[in-house]
Amino acid sequence: MTRTPQTPGTLTVIPVIGLEEIRRGDDLARHIARHAALVNGDVVVVTQKIVSKAEGRVVALDPEDPNERERLIESEAVRVLRRRGRLLVTQTKHGFVCANSGVDLSNVEQGFAALLPEDPDRSARRIRDGLRAAVGVEVAVVVSDTFGRAWRQGVVNVAIGCAGVRAILDLRGTADSFGRELVATEICVADELASAAELVMGKVAHIPVAVVRGVDPEWLRTGSISSEVVRPPAEDLFR
Amino acid sequence: MTRTPQTPGTLTVIPVIGLEEIRRGDDLARHIARHAALVNGDVVVVTQKIVSKAEGRVVALDPEDPNERERLIESEAVRVLRRRGRLLVTQTKHGFVCANSGVDLSNVEQGFAALLPEDPDRSARRIRDGLRAAVGVEVAVVVSDTFGRAWRQGVVNVAIGCAGVRAILDLRGTADSFGRELVATEICVADELASAAELVMGKVAHIPVAVVRGVDPEWLRTGSISSEVVRPPAEDLFR
Repeated sequence: MTRTPQTPGTLTVIPVIGLEEIRRGDDLARHIARHAALVNGDVVVVTQKIVSKAEGRVVALDPEDPNERERLIESEAVRVLRRRGRLLVTQTKHGFVCANSGVDLSNVEQGFAALLPEDPDRSARRIRDGLRAAVGVEVAVVVSDTFGRAWRQGVVNVAIGCAGVRAILDLRGTADSFGRELVATEICVADELASAAELVMGKVAHIPVAVVRGVDPEWLRTGSISSEVVRPPAEDLFR
Repeated sequence: MTRTPQTPGTLTVIPVIGLEEIRRGDDLARHIARHAALVNGDVVVVTQKIVSKAEGRVVALDPEDPNERERLIESEAVRVLRRRGRLLVTQTKHGFVCANSGVDLSNVEQGFAALLPEDPDRSARRIRDGLRAAVGVEVAVVVSDTFGRAWRQGVVNVAIGCAGVRAILDLRGTADSFGRELVATEICVADELASAAELVMGKVAHIPVAVVRGVDPEWLRTGSISSEVVRPPAEDLFR
């Protein structure tokens, strides 16, 4: 097998293996630091589920009672966009449009549901600060969740919070290879980082954290999903 | 710097550097093979733009004439979903919902526009077959393009065609870590592979091909974007 680790610009995506089951009040940064050999410039992608668990965003829910489930989903939403059977597509308090307000019954104890973190950008900042405090590394953090999409089947992992990394790379005004100005090329690298991380997580492998190593240091600046990625409803063509 | 290449499940995303400008009729597989040290099981992600160029899907277009541009976009569409200023959101002949039917003026010679490949799954199969013929490797191929999304700012790289890799990983019925059945977890790994690749491409770096190495061999089966990922309009809640 030809190995080409020397190619400049190569990224590695490394699963963080062996993380303990996370409980309310756990210091996520310390847990992650114990199982990942982090270096400056790493992007640490953390699944929403364990962030919600650490933050106590888990509530009792009778899985046999669809009305209770629907009330919970609606209480996490500011607007229900569509209903089809048991699926509600809602706009959450954060401004995300997703299935069932992100309320999730998988990988949670029977009789409970995990809600999205209250402020996922803040969650990301806390983990980032915690990793700096625990092991002295300067990393970026992305909090991720799997969202469905309009028009395309299947879910993909996207960023719901970030810290220490620009969410969107604005290439407007940068010349293309023919020297003309690109009109609008804003790439959501935060979502792409979340998707890259998901490839090594796998829903069944139960790996809730992955590290993306080797990203352009230029990307590692202050960033926010809430202010960069959430599209204001007035500018949106599909609600 | 701590290197952890030994962590099982680690992926590497390698940019393919030095590719020549692609012209109509070029054998893309031979071009790629010349600049990438491919191994069996690699996923080769190829930007739509060079596929379209090789396939001659480039047409003359007066950049000063907005009407001509709009006629071209409409001729590539089966339906215009929304209009706002110069932006049209259309459903293409392939069933993709995207901006301007995927008609693209960037990284194309002045006075020309690139159209999406006629059948991107077929394009992916041809490149895959070509790589097998050229260097005897068994790889997967994803043809990618950057698409905008409803509800979220910024574009991300997605798969518009694939060969040799399952587009969607169906984890329905697989037990979660609490032993309960996951109801619906279909992950669009093809889109996530495209997004991972984009992180090393960069619009300005002009790197139209990247290799994702180390994916689960279980994923490397027959796949298709058109039949797995394109959501039938009747099942879609947002058109």
